[in-house]
This record gives sequence, structure tokens and C-alpha cells, in this order.
Amino acid sequence: MSSENRLIYLPLGGAGEIGMNAYVYGYGPKDQERLILVDLGVTFPDMDGTPGVDLIFGDISWLEARADRLEAIFVTHGHEDHIGAVALGWPRLKCPVYTRAFTGNLAVRKMEERGGDPEAVQIVGAYPEKVDVGPFSVSFLPVSHSIPESSGLIINTPAGRIVHTGDFKLDESPVVGEPFDPALWGQLGQEGVKVLTCDSTNVFSPQGGRSEATVGPGIHQLVSQAKGMVVATTFASNIARLKTLAEAGKNAGRSVVLLGRAMRRMVEAGIQSGVLTDFPTVVSPEEATQIPRENLMLIVTGSQGERRAASAQLARGKYMGLEMKKGDLFLFSSKTIPGNEKGVIQIINALSEKGVDVVDDSSGIYHVSGHANRPDLKRVHELMHPEMVIPMHGEHRHLREHVKLAEENGIPAIIATNGTMVDLTGPVPKVAEYIEAGRTYLDGAIQIGALDGVVRDRIRMALNGIVLVNVIIDEEDEPLGDPWVELRGLPETGTSNAPLADVLEGDLGQMLGRTDDKVLRDDDKLEDALRRRTRQVANEEIGRKPEVVVVISRLSA
Amino acid sequence: MSSENRLIYLPLGGAGEIGMNAYVYGYGPKDQERLILVDLGVTFPDMDGTPGVDLIFGDISWLEARADRLEAIFVTHGHEDHIGAVALGWPRLKCPVYTRAFTGNLAVRKMEERGGDPEAVQIVGAYPEKVDVGPFSVSFLPVSHSIPESSGLIINTPAGRIVHTGDFKLDESPVVGEPFDPALWGQLGQEGVKVLTCDSTNVFSPQGGRSEATVGPGIHQLVSQAKGMVVATTFASNIARLKTLAEAGKNAGRSVVLLGRAMRRMVEAGIQSGVLTDFPTVVSPEEATQIPRENLMLIVTGSQGERRAASAQLARGKYMGLEMKKGDLFLFSSKTIPGNEKGVIQIINALSEKGVDVVDDSSGIYHVSGHANRPDLKRVHELMHPEMVIPMHGEHRHLREHVKLAEENGIPAIIATNGTMVDLTGPVPKVAEYIEAGRTYLDGAIQIGALDGVVRDRIRMALNGIVLVNVIIDEEDEPLGDPWVELRGLPETGTSNAPLADVLEGDLGQMLGRTDDKVLRDDDKLEDALRRRTRQVANEEIGRKPEVVVVISRLSA
Repeated sequence: MSSENRLIYLPLGGAGEIGMNAYVYGYGPKDQERLILVDLGVTFPDMDGTPGVDLIFGDISWLEARADRLEAIFVTHGHEDHIGAVALGWPRLKCPVYTRAFTGNLAVRKMEERGGDPEAVQIVGAYPEKVDVGPFSVSFLPVSHSIPESSGLIINTPAGRIVHTGDFKLDESPVVGEPFDPALWGQLGQEGVKVLTCDSTNVFSPQGGRSEATVGPGIHQLVSQAKGMVVATTFASNIARLKTLAEAGKNAGRSVVLLGRAMRRMVEAGIQSGVLTDFPTVVSPEEATQIPRENLMLIVTGSQGERRAASAQLARGKYMGLEMKKGDLFLFSSKTIPGNEKGVIQIINALSEKGVDVVDDSSGIYHVSGHANRPDLKRVHELMHPEMVIPMHGEHRHLREHVKLAEENGIPAIIATNGTMVDLTGPVPKVAEYIEAGRTYLDGAIQIGALDGVVRDRIRMALNGIVLVNVIIDEEDEPLGDPWVELRGLPETGTSNAPLADVLEGDLGQMLGRTDDKVLRDDDKLEDALRRRTRQVANEEIGRKPEVVVVISRLSA
Repeated sequence: MSSENRLIYLPLGGAGEIGMNAYVYGYGPKDQERLILVDLGVTFPDMDGTPGVDLIFGDISWLEARADRLEAIFVTHGHEDHIGAVALGWPRLKCPVYTRAFTGNLAVRKMEERGGDPEAVQIVGAYPEKVDVGPFSVSFLPVSHSIPESSGLIINTPAGRIVHTGDFKLDESPVVGEPFDPALWGQLGQEGVKVLTCDSTNVFSPQGGRSEATVGPGIHQLVSQAKGMVVATTFASNIARLKTLAEAGKNAGRSVVLLGRAMRRMVEAGIQSGVLTDFPTVVSPEEATQIPRENLMLIVTGSQGERRAASAQLARGKYMGLEMKKGDLFLFSSKTIPGNEKGVIQIINALSEKGVDVVDDSSGIYHVSGHANRPDLKRVHELMHPEMVIPMHGEHRHLREHVKLAEENGIPAIIATNGTMVDLTGPVPKVAEYIEAGRTYLDGAIQIGALDGVVRDRIRMALNGIVLVNVIIDEEDEPLGDPWVELRGLPETGTSNAPLADVLEGDLGQMLGRTDDKVLRDDDKLEDALRRRTRQVANEEIGRKPEVVVVISRLSA
């Protein structure tokens, strides 16, 4: 019975955080809904919470258990927080992956590198082209953002139309790609939109957003007035910005060099997929070493201070034969993402030591955001006049503020963070269920759960250091010699001025001599006694209780 | 011969970084100069570079080796980056510590807590009072900052006068403490200043600084319009701000509560030292639980997102019986120091989940900086018209920009980072020597060197995990059983789907069986072989090469 069908929304990532986007929609009878997944992105690890981890993405166990009901994955654009986990998750989900051409170029490469199936990637043109999967009919609606061919999704279902904006801004002169088309958006609204699932990133920015085209004049002027070498960094995927920077270099009579693997890869993807045309000729780093520095314009990776990227390498010394000097100019045509400040500041200081002049975006001239600001969000609400707004792509504070904005305009809205299944069938959104929505870590070659304890142990070792205690128990259940102690990440010498390892070995040896036979025969009890004594002695000696690993070897069973 | 005397400056911390200030001045024959130290502060550790470390301060080995020539330590003000290591370094330097009353109150407490001598702390009044130590005559020049009784130092020497600004701003209405006195500063300049050693923190801020008094009206209005409970956070040591916040609460008919140990401690120090008068009556947290929430104003610690401070605790749940709810207001009357963004954002989101409205300083209304901006620095250069400017209290980029500013005004200046000894005797500053200027870590109860490798090992364990391999070799130099393997911070299962520990034990056991006697008899060779094989197998199984500790136990020698 069709009245039993329901339309559901379930974010598995990206709602209640900025990063690792993954949004599920479903339509059908309860618990038999046919499903689609919009985006499968990553978020990046840090030393504070995830040392040693390579990538983080949403826990897709819920979806994996229902993979037979999953029709397809749609990828809105090629930023890592939207596409980065597609190849990692694909072997567990195995379904077609639909994208536009530029995004598809990146997706295929990822599949090849990470063991997914490149053949699963299907290229789709923009609206009005559509893909029919199960009960869904999906079109890619061109939007402006900071990477080519970003798209919202128009998802037609028997229960009504969903517009899922993806990451977007309203830009009528985006330099690369289709300008914002208010007439089309208005028409979609006229036809009726049930649900607007909408980017919330910049809901706290009170002024209307600025067009990508507005950074051109400032950059051109800056580069034309520069005397020495000019180096500029931005996100490699911001092809429009790369074009603006390259053209500024060319107009100033400079040869353009692209430095950094991602930079070359993105320009290649842009050309292969046809979104990038008329990019100025570039010269290789080798050729550049033969060109006077005042005739060079380097466009480089590493705008977020990444230690191995070209920016950091140039700040530290020579890179690919090129070196910055006093009187050169370094431009951050980018903003620093919260959490990356220290890395960026390190680069600026290293450049300062070389006498390089650094220009960043503190003036507001050399960078614009790729997300819609508060007035732009309001305009989209009005153009689409949906029955309900579901804020996504935001931390809790962004989602909450976006709900307020929608409700001010009389549109029902709901805060739905990761794991909140929302029933969209009725006139207002309703929470249907809460799913456990955790995080999965790519750790070397292995996917581990965030709560597996592996990373917790790493953090403990980093904070407390570790003591390894080795004891050999002979055939008569007597200790054979003193315990052997090894330290890692601990001061060698404590307050008694003797080596900590010696103090521990002596003390634990004495303790073993006093330990009664019952404990000596019981691994658990003996281990526990040795651990507690080790922590106590360490605390007396160095004022810190380390992690302790005890290994007891018994010469007979 | 007096012409052989020289005047030197040697920063051991704070020059080329913001934090752990420590500046040495010396006067006398080369290598026999009598010395004074200005400030001995700390900087704070982080997971990225210094996991597990408690505090960081400048390496004072150079000074310790010359402690017999050290006359005194002068502490300009009570911020941790200026006073925090006085008690830690004191046992190695043993000399009088001169401060004004409020700073002294804090210094005595630190001495008591950290094992320094509280009796060493000598309280000095403001200029024109002076302290004569060796060839120096030193006065405390009141300056405005964001803590009471901040002072510059007027250091008269036989080679001329040094004005060491300390941290300062120009504030003619600082709410607490002495207003900026341009006449006095002008007079000091008239008398002649040889060296101006000057705060560089805000050299990139193009507008003149704002007075502490300017935040009053905005805060009063915000608090008076609030409906629920109001909670405000700022640095506990910003007594003037605490007073403004408390008065805003009182004027709005609210009972004021101080939450957090540092908050109560600072108000106590303010009252004890006489700098804080007329502070509104406060009620205890216990009393507050009996007062309607709309009549409460909490002033709390934790403006930088510190996990254990009152702000974070209130964001997570109940604290001291008090709990925030929907409709309450939380005010950050503070700016976020770079590196602390994530912690602060976490609190904001946790408050958002509770329905609490958060106001921060993005409007620029509720906080002002405690440092002089570029036009203020220029004004001080002009008032003091020194023979030379030595920029301090800044990263390299700040020092460099401050040198440019001085040189634009025709004043010689020099970038002197930590360890750069500058000869100030002549008409322009000259580098005399480079001293090794490292960092010392307080790690639990032990002071360790930054390059000792302790912290490096912790970082490696955090990034790579660790494998412990235990091998017993019997009396005939034959392995006794298989090796025993323990893992920490590593996935339990690798790509072969068997437990990693089992795979390693089996593989290493087989390897030992094949190992020739020469290697089995040689601990170093055997350890090396086991380590390399462990890393190789781990890399095949989990795509990661862990740290490895090998312990070989021999049953006979």
C-alpha cells in the first residue's frame, strides 16, 4: 500500500561537524526503503585525537548491512570531504557511483589507487539530464563553489522533490563553470520543493557572499607590482583561482610554474574533463631554474601549512631547484581552516627569516569563500520555498542557526545530526529513529573503528610514556634473576639521580623476593602487582605514572 | 678601563616566538658582565610537538653557568609567559626576584608550590622608586596591559638608559590600574633613552588600540537584556575585565559567582595586593543553586577551551551544582589564541546542543587586546626617541615588521631572536655572539631538554604504535620456544585476517629457527634482525611500520 511508503533522510557524516559528508535518502515501506547515498567524504586526523591515523570517514556499517537496498552513490563534487572515502567504502557497498565529468575524473583515479572499481563510476550531464534509480530520479544542478562542476541534486521521489544543495554559493561570475541561474532555481521552486537539504557552513556570515571574479583585480595588481619571484598558494582544486593566479602571472610577463603533485593533478583533471580551457602555458620547475626570478610566478600546494607540501618545502629551503629570497613575494590566496593556524604561521615565520614578504587574506582582497552566506541562504529558501529545510554541512551551532533562519521565514526545519533518521513524508520533518553513527579510521592499510581502543592506547603512550617489565619465572615458580625493564618516552633519570630503569629493576627485584608463592604462580596477580609497583616507583622518581606492559615468561607450564 | 665595558642584550625566550619570555641584560668587561634577567615565563605544550609535557621554558643553562654574575630577576607582570618559570628556574639561579605587589603575590605562591624560596621575592613600588643592583638601577614604569600592575622597566646603566616595555598598550582609561601617562613617557624620552626594547605582538594591527573602558557599555547592555542565566568567560588574570563583567551583572540585579580556581585566586591576589577595590559581592556556587537562574551572573575560567576549566565543564554538564539550559547566554569576553580554536569551538557546539546562545568577540565589541597596535608603537618610538629599537615579544614576522617600522622612523633596529647576543654599547646594535638557546620541558617532576629524545619517542609511539618482542635464549644459545609479542596502539588484525600478534610470533619463530648461531650469540645482531623482520611483517599485514622494542633474555651468560 503506497500510503505506507515513507521518505527518509539519514546523515552518517557531515551533520554536526564540517567534514566527512555522507547523507542517505530512502523511499519505500518502513525498513524496506530503497536507498541512495549522497557523497562519501573524509575528514583529516590530528595529533590531539587521532595520532597516526591516515583518514577518517563515517561509519557505514548501517548502510553495508543494507547494501542490497542501496541503489547508487551520487557525488556532488570533488572535495575530499565529499569524495575522499568513495573508494574506501565502495568494496563494502558495491553500487554505481554517479558524478559529473570533473568529479568523475577524480573518482576514477581514487578507485584505481584504493582498490575500488573504476568501472563503477558513471558520468552524468547536468540538469535536465537525469538518472533513474529505484524510486528516485536524480539530476545534477550546477552550483558555484570552489571546485569545478559542483552540483546540487534534484531528487524526485514519489513523495515529492528533494533539493540537496551540496556545497554552494551564489556566484553570477564564477570564472570557471556555470554562473548561478536564479531563473532556473525559481522555476524549480515553482514546480514545488518538498525538502531543501542545505549547506550551513557560512550561516554566521552576515554579509552577502562575494563572487570569485572579485579577487581578480587585487591579485593582478599585486603580482604586477611585485619585484622578485612571486609564489602563490591556494587549494589545488580551486581551478578558477588557479586560472586567475596564472593569468595574473602571465599578464605581468611571468612564466607560470605549478608546484606540488595535487596542483598538477587538478589542472590535468580540469583539462581532461573539459572544464578548464585557456589555461596559460606553464613551464616545468627545471625550465624555471633558467628563468630570472623576477619573471617567475609559482603556484604551489600547501595553503594549510601541510608539512610536506610545496609551500612548506619552499619555506624551509630549496624545492625542485627553486628557492625563495629576500624581496620575493608569497601570497596566501586562501583562508586558514581552524586547526591549521600553527602550521601556516610556521611557514610565514620561516619565510620571514628568508626576508620574503608574505601577503595573506587579512585584508579580505585575495580570497573569497565557496559557501553561501546568511543572506544568500535566505534567498535560496525564498527561491525554492520548500515545505521544510534540513540544514546540513555544519557543526551543531551552524545547524541550529540555520534552523532559526528557516523558522524566521516560516519554514519548518530540524536539527538532524549524524545518526538521526528523519521522516520527511509528512508536512513537517520528524525524527524516526537514532542510528549509531560513529567514525571509521583508515590506519595504514586497515579500517578500524574509532572506539576500538587502538588510538586511545597511542594517546596514552604519548602522554605517559611506557615501561616494559620482563620477568622470567623458573620451573619451581621462582623468579629467575631480577626483572628486566625498558623505558620509552620517559626521562632516563629521576629525582634520586640514579637511572630510572635501574631503580625500577632493583625495586621490582626486591618486591619479587617478598612476593608469596600464590601470587608468583598466578600470571594475572603477578602482572597486576608488578604494574602497580612500577607506576608507584615511577611516580616517586619522575612524578608521572607511565603505561606499563608486563611480560611474564615461564620456563615450565 | 671603562671603555672596555659593554652593554649586552640576550633573549633566551620570547624573541622569535610569543611565549616563555626571558631577556638577559649585562654590563661590564666582556665575559665578566654583571647580569640581570627580565622575566622567566613558560609556554604551553601541545599534542603535536610536546605530548605529555607539563610546561616549557627557555633553556637557562647559559645563565646557570654564570649564576655568580646574576644580580637579580625582574618580573614585569604576572602572566604565565612572564612569571611561570620563575619558581622552576630559581633553584638553579638563586638570586633576588623583584616585582610589584600584585605580581609578587603570584610569585610567592608559585615559589611555595614549586619549591623556590618565597623569601627571594622583593616587592618594589612604581617609578620613581628604584632598585640598585650591580651597575644597574631599575625602576618599574607602570604600563597598561590585561593584568594589574604590568610594568615596563627603566634600566639605567653606565652606558645609558634602557626602556624595556614589557607587554603593554596605551590606555588612558584602563578600568583598573594607572592610566597611560604621555607626559611621563615624554619626559623619560627627553632625558635620553639609549635602547627601547619593545613589545611587538600587535605590530600587524593597523588601527590604534582600544581602551579597556570601551568594552563596558556593550557588556552592560548585553547582560541587562539577557533573560536566563548569564555566564561570561575571560582570562582570570584580566582583573579589569572581571570587574566590568561583575558590575554588569550587579547592575542587572544579578548575583555574581566566580567559578574556577584561577578566577578565585586572581581576585584574591587583587584584593590582597590592593589593586582591586570595590569588587561587587560574590556568592558561592552553593548559594547560587538557591537563586533563580535569571538572577545569576557566572564569571568562569576556560576562555581558551581548556578541557578541565569551568567553561568546558559547564558545556558538558553540571558544574558545582550549576547547569546551563536553553535560553541562557554564554559570553566569550576574550579572543582565541591561535592553536586553541578547536577546544573553543567544541565548547560552543556543546553549548549549542543545550540550546544556549553563545556570543563571542566576532563583533569586536566584547574584548580588546592588551598589546599596543602599530600606531601606538610608532607613538612610543616617538615619545621615547631612543637611539635604537630592539623588538621583542614576537615571532620572527613580528620582529621583522617592527624593525621596518622603527627604520621607517629613522631609528636603527635589529632582529634578535633567542640566543642572539647583541652589543648595545655603540650607536647601533651589533650581534656579538650566538648562544645555544633551546627549550627545557617540565615533565612530571623532572626538567628535561627538548632534544633529549624523550618526547620524540612519545611522538613516534603515537604515530606508529609499538610492538614488544620477547625472546628467551637458552644455555646452548638456542631459542627457547617462539618469541612472545605484545602490541600497543596497533590494529589487532591485519589483511590476512589472523591476529597480528599470532602472525608475528609464528613468523619470528620460523625466522629464529633459520637464524645462524653467530647471530643467535650476538644480542645486537639478533635484536636488529628481529626488529627488521617485525617491521616488514607488520607492514605487509597492516600497512604500517611500528616502533619495535626487542628484549632478549639469556638463561646463561
